This record gives sequence, structure tokens and C-alpha cells, in this order.
Amino acid sequence: MKKHNFSAGPSILPQSVLHKAAEGVVDYNQSGLSLIEISHRSAAFVDIMASARNLSLELLGLQDKGYQALFLQGGASMQFIMAAYNLLENKAGYLNTGTWSNNAIKEAKNFGTILELASSKEANFNHIPKNYAIPEGLDYVHVTSNNTIYGTQLHDFPTASPLVCDMSSDIFSRALDFSKFDLIYAGAQKNMGPAGTTLVIVKEEVLGKVSRNIPSMMNYKVHIDKESMFNTPPVFAVYVSLLTMQWLIDLGGIQAIEKENQRKAQLIYDTIDQSELYIGFAAKEDRSAMNATFTLAAGADAETFGQMVKDAGINGLNGHRVVGGYRASMYNALPYESVLVLAEVMNEFNRKG
Amino acid sequence: MKKHNFSAGPSILPQSVLHKAAEGVVDYNQSGLSLIEISHRSAAFVDIMASARNLSLELLGLQDKGYQALFLQGGASMQFIMAAYNLLENKAGYLNTGTWSNNAIKEAKNFGTILELASSKEANFNHIPKNYAIPEGLDYVHVTSNNTIYGTQLHDFPTASPLVCDMSSDIFSRALDFSKFDLIYAGAQKNMGPAGTTLVIVKEEVLGKVSRNIPSMMNYKVHIDKESMFNTPPVFAVYVSLLTMQWLIDLGGIQAIEKENQRKAQLIYDTIDQSELYIGFAAKEDRSAMNATFTLAAGADAETFGQMVKDAGINGLNGHRVVGGYRASMYNALPYESVLVLAEVMNEFNRKG
Repeated sequence: MKKHNFSAGPSILPQSVLHKAAEGVVDYNQSGLSLIEISHRSAAFVDIMASARNLSLELLGLQDKGYQALFLQGGASMQFIMAAYNLLENKAGYLNTGTWSNNAIKEAKNFGTILELASSKEANFNHIPKNYAIPEGLDYVHVTSNNTIYGTQLHDFPTASPLVCDMSSDIFSRALDFSKFDLIYAGAQKNMGPAGTTLVIVKEEVLGKVSRNIPSMMNYKVHIDKESMFNTPPVFAVYVSLLTMQWLIDLGGIQAIEKENQRKAQLIYDTIDQSELYIGFAAKEDRSAMNATFTLAAGADAETFGQMVKDAGINGLNGHRVVGGYRASMYNALPYESVLVLAEVMNEFNRKG
Repeated sequence: MKKHNFSAGPSILPQSVLHKAAEGVVDYNQSGLSLIEISHRSAAFVDIMASARNLSLELLGLQDKGYQALFLQGGASMQFIMAAYNLLENKAGYLNTGTWSNNAIKEAKNFGTILELASSKEANFNHIPKNYAIPEGLDYVHVTSNNTIYGTQLHDFPTASPLVCDMSSDIFSRALDFSKFDLIYAGAQKNMGPAGTTLVIVKEEVLGKVSRNIPSMMNYKVHIDKESMFNTPPVFAVYVSLLTMQWLIDLGGIQAIEKENQRKAQLIYDTIDQSELYIGFAAKEDRSAMNATFTLAAGADAETFGQMVKDAGINGLNGHRVVGGYRASMYNALPYESVLVLAEVMNEFNRKG
């Protein structure tokens, strides 16, 4: 049966990418060797890394604007540390919009003073705080653009410089003026590739301003100087990320995928709003186009709904334990058709209920 | 043409592993979903991680002896930092046997005082220093078991506690009393799997003794408490490492592969020693069974040799720039047959020369 993969991450990748990646694991470009058993200094992989770095900047419209792209290891959790290691001298401001922001704050506190600019914690992070003050003199301001667990998304970004953003769960999904950001990082496993690599986009001029010694692996400058090959990179994850970015370019880039993502989100939110059986979790104005969170109204038969979801081949719809209910993650590679299947199941359940 | 892959790393993996890995990338266990697009919290991946952790301890004979196995990201270079973060309070002793030891020393200096116990740097690391003193009161002693670049290998380990060892390039290749070590780490990309994950084996009792705050991603205890899933692990790299460990178990484990590795090493070193055309780089008593380094005698026709090597389908034989010449890396997955092909080329060149 055809599967509809709503997994929150690691999450769906384009079928063409999966097939090409599998080919490369057995025999890369008819070389007679697997991509994962050749030197990362080989011409083949050096080209993959250079292409991936270039393409990420191209997709974001950041070529020739003083930015560097890196493919590192350790996920966003490692970037919580690296951002602070490289940029935090005294005090930074963090917007707290959920579990991951909270973790970013916790880790940064190892390196300096952290000011929580605003938080929606008291409302279980069901909205994005607004109209908060940003004091002068901060080393940087940190935000999380999309909150997978809660299904909220920043539609406006604070005016601050340097501005640091964890875009793990909505990178490459919508057009923004990315030149407003000085540091962007994103674990690959939502919109970009498999788990195991993290895209870091950094404006070089913000580096080199802290007084501490930075160990090499933590130091963005070291990775930039070594063209993202300071040590052996996660070859497979970078390759699959490159394939996924090429797939996105072929589709028409971020502008094209954003339209498709809006169509998908519209369908699911309309389905939620048209029935009293479904209760959206996130505040309407802060809804995420990536992750739609909802619960069933009291008294609804969750068991039947769960069975219908399963029978339709829908995978990964369970909500995170801190919110409960359901979460439809609709990353770039999820076809509109899959959202249609989910909407039909929801409408059918509504008719029955 | 059949390739013979002598790459120093990332390096050869068993063909059966590559094919099974490629299958998993398209459709994992007939689930209709790729392994790289499902949640790391899924039953499928939780089982992979648990099996990989157990199997690594089983292979090393360290089950039920107070050790924990972790599959982390960042390579040995990240472990240079993490080892020091977790164990270095005041002063540690490092044996300097090459570029990677040297890098380990450099990074650890960010966290405390490092005593170089001994070094063979003056001899371009062509041997392993011996008969050096280890003073009392060190937080730990750090050694590198195999030096890929130079082709040297520790055949005896210092008596010290805690003993930390970078086994990146010879893990799972030979039988040792692994319980002598308190911390072992190894980037996967030589004997264990693809680049992108690092095996860490740590004796729990050595942790928790430093006074500094340790950021979560740097903290072995955090990773142990979360069963190596503190954040999204590098799913594919862990899976391929598991497949490779299962392949090794099926072959008879470390004892069996050690015999095969000795056979391969014997053949290549005999070929070097039987001709005046080849000059072994490493001191005989310190020769590595993993990486055999040699140069051609003055006046030998390197171009012809290079062409003969190429014509035979031999890949990755160039030596590292700091040593020059040639390096035959003979990791676990390299068949004896490939070494035979190389030895025949070397003998043929010798007859011609």
C-alpha cells in the first residue's frame, strides 16, 4: 500500500532522491566504488561538497553577500553550543517559543548571560510572543523560526543584529529576506536531507569578535578555512542533501515550493476549521505551514480515527507528548496528494462522528 | 573492471553491507518507507541503535563490565574535545605518535595542561616511542592505537589509568584486552561503517569527576542517560555500522578477522622486504597491520609503477603528503585477493625494474 509520510523528522524525502542515493551507495556514477567507501578528498566528493555549499547559498539568495555555507555534524543541538561559543561574549537575547528554543537557551548559558526576551511557555507555547522589547547591547538575538512540536511559525522576525535563527524545521520552505540573518542553522532531517548533517549559513563579518579560545571543531572560522572539510564530513548525508536541493531547484526553488506548501497547509487548516470535531492547537495567526497540530474534541472516538488513519496508509501523525493529539508534518517533499488523503480521512470521520 | 580499494578512509565496506544499506535507503524491511525518512523514535530505529550499542560491546568483550557504547557525531576530532571536557581537570599525559595525536593534544590544551609523555616527531613519526615515564597524578593518559598516515601501530599499551585511546583506524581489527581502556573512541569510516558516526566506549566510573559545567552535547553522561539518542542520531551511518558489525560477527568476530588481517599484512610487508626497490617507511617492530607505508628506491620509475597500479584496478594507494610514496590501507573489509593483486603488481614491477 502507498504510504503517506507525515513524520515530524527524520521525515519524507523525494522518491527520486532516495533512488539516486541508493544507487550511489552501491556504485557512485559508474565508478565501480560506493560513494561511502571513497576518500572525502577524492575529486568526486570534493565536488559534492562544493556544489552543496553553493546550492544552499543560491537557494537562499545569499551568494556573493559575505556568507559562507557549512555542512557540519551534531544537529541543531550542537549549534546551540557553537553559536554561543562563536558569538557570545557577554549577553545575548533569546525568544523562547518552545522546547528547542528552551534547549538553546539552556546550552548558551554555559557561555554567558542569556536574556529571555519573551516566552509563551505559560500557554504551552501555543503562540509566538509579540511586542517584546529588545534592549541595546546584546551580542546577538536568537529565534527559532518554526516550532515543530507546537505547530507555530514566526511570520515576522525581530529587527536585530546580529540575528541568529534555528531554521531546522522550515529551511527552504518559504521565501524570506535571508540577508536579515547573520547566522542560520538547520539540521538536515526535515526539509533538506537525512539526519547526520547540519547546514550552517554564517555571515563572516560577525565572527572573530569573542575573546575566548574556541576548540577547532567548535570554531566556524576553522570550518570556513577548510571549506567544510576540517575533518571527514558525513559524506552520505551531504550527498543526499545535495540531491534534495537539486530536486528543489528543478521544481522552481523556494518560491515554487512555498506556493505548494501554502496549498497543503490551507487544505489541512480548512479541514480542521470546518469541523467542531477538530481543535487546532496553535493560535491561528501563528500557524505553521510545516506542522499542523490538532486534537479531537472531547468525546470523539480516537480509536476509530486512529484506525482510519492507519487504514489510509498515513504514517507519523501522532502528536508530540507535550501537546498530544495529532501533528501533520508537511515538509517540502510531502505531496499534496498525501494531504488530500488525510483531509479525506478527517472529513469522513467527521461525517461518521 | 573489479576495483581493489586501498583507500585510507573513508574506506572499503563489505559488498553485502553496501547492498543491504542501499535497500534500506529505498525501502526498509518492506515497510514501504525508507530508513532515512522515519522517526528515530520509531521501533525500527530504536532497535537498530540498541543492537549497534550491544554488538559493539559484544565484539570488544565488554558486556556487563561497566561500559557504555555511544554512537555520536563529529568524528575523532570531536572526541579530542569531549574527552578533555569530560575527564580533564588539571593535567593529562598524551603520547604523540603522529598528526592525529598532535591534534588531540592541541585541542585538549583548551581545557587544561597537557604533558607530552613522548614523541617521535623528530623522526617524522616513523616509530612508536618506548620506555617513557608516566608520572603520577595525571587525570588520564591518551594514546592513538594506529597511525594511518605513517603506518605505525601500538603493539603494547602503557599501563595507566584512566587510559584513553583513539582507535579510529584499527577498531575491531585485532584482539586486545579492551578492559584495560577506560575510554575508547573511533570514527566509523575505517573499520566500522561510513563517515558520519563515531563509536565511543566509556567506563562509566571515570565520569562525573571534573568540576566544570559540560554542555549537554559534550557530556557523555547525558548521551548515556538518553541511550545515545539525546538528539537525532545519524541514522544511516549507525545502520551501516550495525550491518558491518553483524558481518564481522558472522565471520567469527575480532579473532577471526585478526588472522585475516595478519595474513594480508604479512603478504604486503614480505613483498616490500624482498625487494630493494621498496623501502618500508615505518620501523619494522611498529608496523601497522592496517596501513603499510612505503616509497620507491631512488631512480625507480614511479610513473610506470603508478600506471601498473591503475591498470590493475587498484584505488587509493597514494601516500599522505607528509610521508609521500604509497600507503596500502588494508581494513577489515579488504579481501586478501586485493592484497594479492597489489603484491603481484609490486613483484612484476620489481622484475621489470
